[in-house]
Formats: sequence, C-alpha cells, structure tokens
Amino acid sequence: MKIHKLWNDYPDLSKDLKKTLKLMEKSINISNPEVEEAILTMMHSGGKLLRPAYLLLFSQFGKNVNKDKITALAAAMETLHTATLIHDDIVDEAGLRRNQETLQHRFGKDVAVYAGDYLFVSCFKILSNHASTLKSIQLNARSMETILAGELGQMNNRYDTSMSVTTYLKNIGGKTAELFGLSCSVGAYESGCSPLFAKKCQNIGYAIGITFQILDDILDYSQESEQIGKPVLEDVKQGVYSLPLLYALETHKTELLPYLSKKEHMTSEDTEKVFEIVHSSGGIDSANTLAEFYTTKALKEISRLPKNEQKTKETLYDLTELLLSRKQ
Amino acid sequence: MKIHKLWNDYPDLSKDLKKTLKLMEKSINISNPEVEEAILTMMHSGGKLLRPAYLLLFSQFGKNVNKDKITALAAAMETLHTATLIHDDIVDEAGLRRNQETLQHRFGKDVAVYAGDYLFVSCFKILSNHASTLKSIQLNARSMETILAGELGQMNNRYDTSMSVTTYLKNIGGKTAELFGLSCSVGAYESGCSPLFAKKCQNIGYAIGITFQILDDILDYSQESEQIGKPVLEDVKQGVYSLPLLYALETHKTELLPYLSKKEHMTSEDTEKVFEIVHSSGGIDSANTLAEFYTTKALKEISRLPKNEQKTKETLYDLTELLLSRKQ
Repeated sequence: MKIHKLWNDYPDLSKDLKKTLKLMEKSINISNPEVEEAILTMMHSGGKLLRPAYLLLFSQFGKNVNKDKITALAAAMETLHTATLIHDDIVDEAGLRRNQETLQHRFGKDVAVYAGDYLFVSCFKILSNHASTLKSIQLNARSMETILAGELGQMNNRYDTSMSVTTYLKNIGGKTAELFGLSCSVGAYESGCSPLFAKKCQNIGYAIGITFQILDDILDYSQESEQIGKPVLEDVKQGVYSLPLLYALETHKTELLPYLSKKEHMTSEDTEKVFEIVHSSGGIDSANTLAEFYTTKALKEISRLPKNEQKTKETLYDLTELLLSRKQ
Repeated sequence: MKIHKLWNDYPDLSKDLKKTLKLMEKSINISNPEVEEAILTMMHSGGKLLRPAYLLLFSQFGKNVNKDKITALAAAMETLHTATLIHDDIVDEAGLRRNQETLQHRFGKDVAVYAGDYLFVSCFKILSNHASTLKSIQLNARSMETILAGELGQMNNRYDTSMSVTTYLKNIGGKTAELFGLSCSVGAYESGCSPLFAKKCQNIGYAIGITFQILDDILDYSQESEQIGKPVLEDVKQGVYSLPLLYALETHKTELLPYLSKKEHMTSEDTEKVFEIVHSSGGIDSANTLAEFYTTKALKEISRLPKNEQKTKETLYDLTELLLSRKQ
C-alpha cells in the first residue's frame, strides 16, 4: 500500500497511517462494485492523510493509548473528510480531484450524493464501534454540525464583494479548521488527556487548519494551479471569494467589479484579468502575511506542549513547519 | 403547531408527536436564515410522522419508558428521514414535494446537499445526546449504512427491464423498510425490552415499510398523482422501475420496450403509453396483491404482541390497517 511521500521520513507514523487507510477500506461494503471501486480509488488517490496524522500524533500525549481505538478514530476522521470532498465536488461540479475523475463526473450526481452520505454514516459507524464513550461521538457530532452550518452560512456570502476578512476566517474556520481541531482534540482526549489539554490541542489544530486553507486559496492564484487538477478560478465564477481576492477588493474594487459582476458568466479572459489584478495589487502578499501569523501561532503553541513527549513534539513542529511553508 | 390530521383520533400520540417535532426544530441552528426557514418549512409541511409514531408506540412495551429520551429518538428518526428526502429530491431533480417547492429547486443543489448533510449530522447529535448506550448508535449506524448501500445498489438496476421482484423487494427494503424496522426496534429496545423482542418489532416495522413503499409506487400510477405534487412517472424516465411496471414487463415486455428504451428521452406521450399498459396488463392488481400479503403479515404479527399492552396493540393494529388500506 502506498501513501503520500510526505510520510517517508516518519516510519512509525507511516505504519499507523497505512493501518488507518486499511480500516477505512474495510468499512466500505456496497453491492455496487463500480461505485465501491471508485470510493476506494478516491481513498488511495494520494491525499496527505493530515487529519489522521495529527490525531495519531496528539494521541501520544495520553497515558492510555489504545492503538486499535486511535487508529479507528483516525479512520473516522479521514472518512468524514472524504465524504465532504465528494459532496464539495458535486457543489463545485468539479471534473477532477487529485488528477482523478471525480465521482460525480464519472457516475453522475445521484451516485455522488449517496456515496458521500454512505461515508458520513461509515464515519459514525466506525466511531460508535470504537469510541470509548458517547462523549466522543457528541464532540464529533457537534464539530460536524459546525462544519456544515459553516458551509451553509458561506452560501450567504456568495458574490459579496464587500465581504470582510473576519467573515472569511469564520467561513474557513467551519469548512477546514474545525475538522483539524477536532482531529487533534479527539486524539488527545481519547488517549486519556484532560479536557483542558484536549482544548489546547484543538486550538493548535484550528490554527493549522486556518493556515492550511489560506495556503490552499493562495494556490488557486498560482501558475501551477492547472497542474494540480483544479479548474482555474472556478470558485470566483461561483461567487466564492477567498482571501487574496478579498484583499485585492479592499484596494482595487473599481478595477475588479466589471469582471466580477458577470458572476457565473465570466469568461476565461475575465478570470485571467482578475488573476492579474489580484497579483499586482498585492493580494497574494497580504494573504501570505496572514497565513504566516497563524503558522507562528501554531508553532508557538506546539513548542509549549509538555516536555515528556519530546520526540512527538519535534515531529509535530517539523511537520507543521514543513506543511505550512509551501510558498507559491 | 399543526400535525397531520391522521393523528386527530390519537390525542396522546398527537401530543408526543408535537413534542418530537419541536425537538427536531430546536436542533436546527444555521446562520443562514433563509435555509433554516426552508428546512423548518419542510419539517412542517404535513409529513405523516409515521416513523416517530411507530417508535413511540413500540416504546410502550418496555418497562423503563423515559419520555424525554424516547421523544429524542423519535426526533432523530424523522430528522434522518427528512435528510434522505432532501437528498432524494436532488437525485430526482424534483421541483415539488408535498406541494411545496423542494430545497434543491428553491436554493440550488449546493444548499440541498449541505442541508441534507446537516440533518444527517443533526440526527447523530440528537442520538448521541440522548441514547443511553453506544449500542443504540451502533444499531442506527448499521441501519443507515444498509439504507445508503441500498440506494447505491439500486443504481445498479437502473433501466434493467429484466429486474426481478426479489431485487425490487431488496431495494425497497433498504430504501424504506429498514428505517421503519429501525424505528420500531429502537423504540422497544431503548425502553427496556429484550433484544429478541426488539427484533420482532423490527420485523413488523420492516413488513409495514415494504407495504408502504409498494403502495407509494402504485400511487405513481394513479390518476391523482399530479395532485400530490409529484411529476408523473419521472422515476420511469430515470430508469427506476417499480413493482407495477415490473409485473407488466413480465407479460407485456414487447409492448413496453419501444417506450422504455428511450430512457431519459421519453416524452410525455411515451410515459402516458406506459401508464396505460401497466394498467391494462394487470400490473397494478398484482402489485396490490403483494402489498396485501405484507399487510396481512404485519397485522398478524401485531396481533401476537403481548396482551399487557392491549391499548397500544389496538392502536398499532388500527393505525397499520388504516395506513395500509389506502387504495388507488
């Protein structure tokens, strides 16, 4: 079984992540072989498995590490993440993800709707079979609720050229940071750490998630975005305005409005123009500065974690620094 | 608060169902007021609340009826049902349900995808806050898995003019009967009945669900189907062949094939023709006969329930007889 090359330098973690992926596979059991295969392919298509990795790492701080349980929880997180990706692809009408054809493109949206639902349920099945208490499931359900309430809230802000950075941060908080935070806190909590400590871990995960999403949004404005299998600025056409554009709107609204006001009818020349203005106005630089603020915050909090798990701390620090350094 | 007139004759049950609906409402908390209102409207649009009603009734057989807990479980079942309806409407591209504009028609499929997801999670949130043990959540997750695996399996059988009645029964088993069965067994189990007794209740619910779906499928071939807000034979165009058509195909395949083979390009004249052949071939009568078989089975098993809850037994019997008697 192959996983992302990011983990080559971490043999222990790599072993646990492979176990996680195996468990995810095992909990898929659909009488439609084609759809089953498509879900499995998606699981193996080279996602970085970041959420399970952080969960596994933070579980090291507890005194009662039950490896089987922790692996199961890690599998639940990644299954949930995969479910949201499948449903996001329906909403975005995406044709490609990780250079593979999306489920909705290959089988139509009906299969994609139910496949995502199936993975949502699969996540809860894994959780209820392996979590030690209802408390964990409650935490999960509450976080998932925040995630989806966030996605729905975001619809309110479509095509809003006056959207504030605060609103953007709230939206990506629900969309991305919440699940990172949950992964970190569940790892700690379920291996016996105190609720207070778990809350600290959640804050670290949240900051990582925020940075991660900002960097992802900056990536849409990179020259290579075509190469990673995403349609260029498709989000902008659909009214989802991310940080670089919001910063550019603060100073270059008059220049941008003629293009943005065409909404879903924007041509590729229009998105090209938006692309250029966002770069020349310094929108990318400002977005990078905010990302750095959250990176520093996350790294500072990691360096304050208990000394008794020095090796885990170092791994967390190095890994987070590496992940959050991807410059465009 | 108004609920379906079906419950006018059952004042106690009616009170509990209103509490259930109130709890469902309370667990919706979305920062998008329009979407929140649409979900609430859907919840109040006159669904019969059958799943919670059966759950509440079967809970009467237990010795430890905790009303708050049982109401919560009933709310979880109906929330789950509502989630599947919202996603079904995306798949069917339905414009109307219960004579109201569907979420996907009003807000687009993106909102509908996330709104359904939100309700899935809301169901688990209610469950994890109120179920007494992980066992209940496990049962739920397993049933939900069956439901969704069924929906996905069904995709395998699209446009299959040789589909057997057995396959049809398996499909509607997953789609409808599973959730009826779950509601009945969870009601009994969570109020202290033995697992064996809960299993009996599940069988009763399963038979009711099968009948219910067959009758619903027959309704698509009734003259009044337009009046209940469903597009006429839209399912047939999309390749979902239900019992009346499958029976008609057994005897009149040659007549039906020229129309069916046009698949999604069937015109309204084509569906009209199919409609007529299904009637003249006796497809409707055969479907009604199979429905009666399951009705008899359910009623017989209800009459064998313990005598100590005579009033509940009678309510269950009368209600089931009434529901399953809707003739076309």
